Amino acid sequence: MSTSKMIENALEQYLLKKGTLYDVLWESMRYSVGAGGKRVRPMLTLEFARLCGEDYELAIPFACAVEFIHTYSLIHDDLPCMDDDDMRRGKPSNHIVFGEDTALLAGDALQSLAFEVMLSSDTLSKVSADRAAQAAFTLAKFCGADGMVGGQVIDLQYEDKNADENVISTMHLLKTGALIKAACLMGCIVAGADEAKLKACEEYAECIGLAFQLIDDVLDVTSTTDQLGKPVNSDVENNKSTLVSLFGVEECIKRAEALTDKAINALDVFEGDTTYLKDFALKLSKRRN
Amino acid sequence: MSTSKMIENALEQYLLKKGTLYDVLWESMRYSVGAGGKRVRPMLTLEFARLCGEDYELAIPFACAVEFIHTYSLIHDDLPCMDDDDMRRGKPSNHIVFGEDTALLAGDALQSLAFEVMLSSDTLSKVSADRAAQAAFTLAKFCGADGMVGGQVIDLQYEDKNADENVISTMHLLKTGALIKAACLMGCIVAGADEAKLKACEEYAECIGLAFQLIDDVLDVTSTTDQLGKPVNSDVENNKSTLVSLFGVEECIKRAEALTDKAINALDVFEGDTTYLKDFALKLSKRRN
Repeated sequence: MSTSKMIENALEQYLLKKGTLYDVLWESMRYSVGAGGKRVRPMLTLEFARLCGEDYELAIPFACAVEFIHTYSLIHDDLPCMDDDDMRRGKPSNHIVFGEDTALLAGDALQSLAFEVMLSSDTLSKVSADRAAQAAFTLAKFCGADGMVGGQVIDLQYEDKNADENVISTMHLLKTGALIKAACLMGCIVAGADEAKLKACEEYAECIGLAFQLIDDVLDVTSTTDQLGKPVNSDVENNKSTLVSLFGVEECIKRAEALTDKAINALDVFEGDTTYLKDFALKLSKRRN
Repeated sequence: MSTSKMIENALEQYLLKKGTLYDVLWESMRYSVGAGGKRVRPMLTLEFARLCGEDYELAIPFACAVEFIHTYSLIHDDLPCMDDDDMRRGKPSNHIVFGEDTALLAGDALQSLAFEVMLSSDTLSKVSADRAAQAAFTLAKFCGADGMVGGQVIDLQYEDKNADENVISTMHLLKTGALIKAACLMGCIVAGADEAKLKACEEYAECIGLAFQLIDDVLDVTSTTDQLGKPVNSDVENNKSTLVSLFGVEECIKRAEALTDKAINALDVFEGDTTYLKDFALKLSKRRN
């Protein structure tokens, strides 16, 4: 089975519930998780686990957990009190289909589910409690107030203010970077990687996270709604400072490429085959949707 | 130091962050956690840990975690897309003070923080990873889609429909009961309690959870806004089926008392001093705010 098929199957299995008084909640969770993301984060978790000498399979709950967290953040991001986006990945947003209240709760429940699957007895029968706890801690830390959510708050704070490079970079490092970092680190942690590997993994993750976001901002001004599956020019229309508005498209692409090189170099410390992660970094910085 | 002082101190310590670009987030989290709840759930965690032979101190992170989850649920519950309550515990709701976007994110971050504190290296230096993971799993399970959040969705589903006793009971068991159960169970788990004790603990928790909710519904029709610190008659005004609307005030009080007796009897299996938990059950069913 291909890795991506493995991830899709596992995500589906974890969301298989029905026949209850609150089935609409599970339906709403399935709707957003199944809405066809690129599974960037789970792939990173699995690949780092493999690179550090573990079976993909052991890392599956952690890979799914990070996707659940990512999905919950998208559902909440799209809510009217946040970005108020009606469309996500070319489909109506969760709250358009299920209502704001159920969408809010589906996001909340997806966050809980992330921790549930990482710490279930099934997971602990394959991964030591030490490693599972450390991986779950890493995800909690990087998705919370000093991670992803903190980044979202910086974003809100500077919605109608000019932000300098430091603010925008910190915002990106947290808002998108933190979860990518958690995804990569969890793979290493589950496989019992040493400090040097964890450090290299962090560097790789930080670089591709920032590159990912640079390209995201670039695509927002150079792409079409059809290509992107979501509204374009949203940053310009919202008068938001972005790295593109500070440095221009060309410089941002240049920076993304430099970060990609740095990410690839960080992989030198690993003995195994890093082809996948190298290609992955290159593909991220060259993606057009 | 009194137990409740210990809890307040620990909650405060975990929320001590400042000087960042997103300090308003921590401020918003502190606002709601500090808004003077009764700390029912953390007290239960500590007391069950003590009853099963452990120091209060070991259970502190788990006690705080359940309070963080409870607080996040209140913040989200008060949002305009949910109950749209401007007041909570006699003070303006989080979103009234900080705005809907920050309130939403503060709730999200409190959920992450709950898992972070239970699985931190500091916690794992005192509690084995096995127990910490099992306790955190328990909280994740009972606060998620098949627990608290599921209960909230049932509540939404039956907002303007007549609900029968089964629906209302299931809703309560999940919406309020699940988190109380998690609070009690985590105390036992951290202390390494055996199956018989876990089972008794679950029975106690289920009974006081249901009794708690019965009294809540009763107070909604018999209390004043001043006494309760939140709007009264909200269920009647929203045309909601409650156990009170089905059975009347008197029968509900009778049921709450019977459940309280059952809860107290469940404690027989424990060897230690159960005075506190007995009084606690009695106080809950006799409370008037």
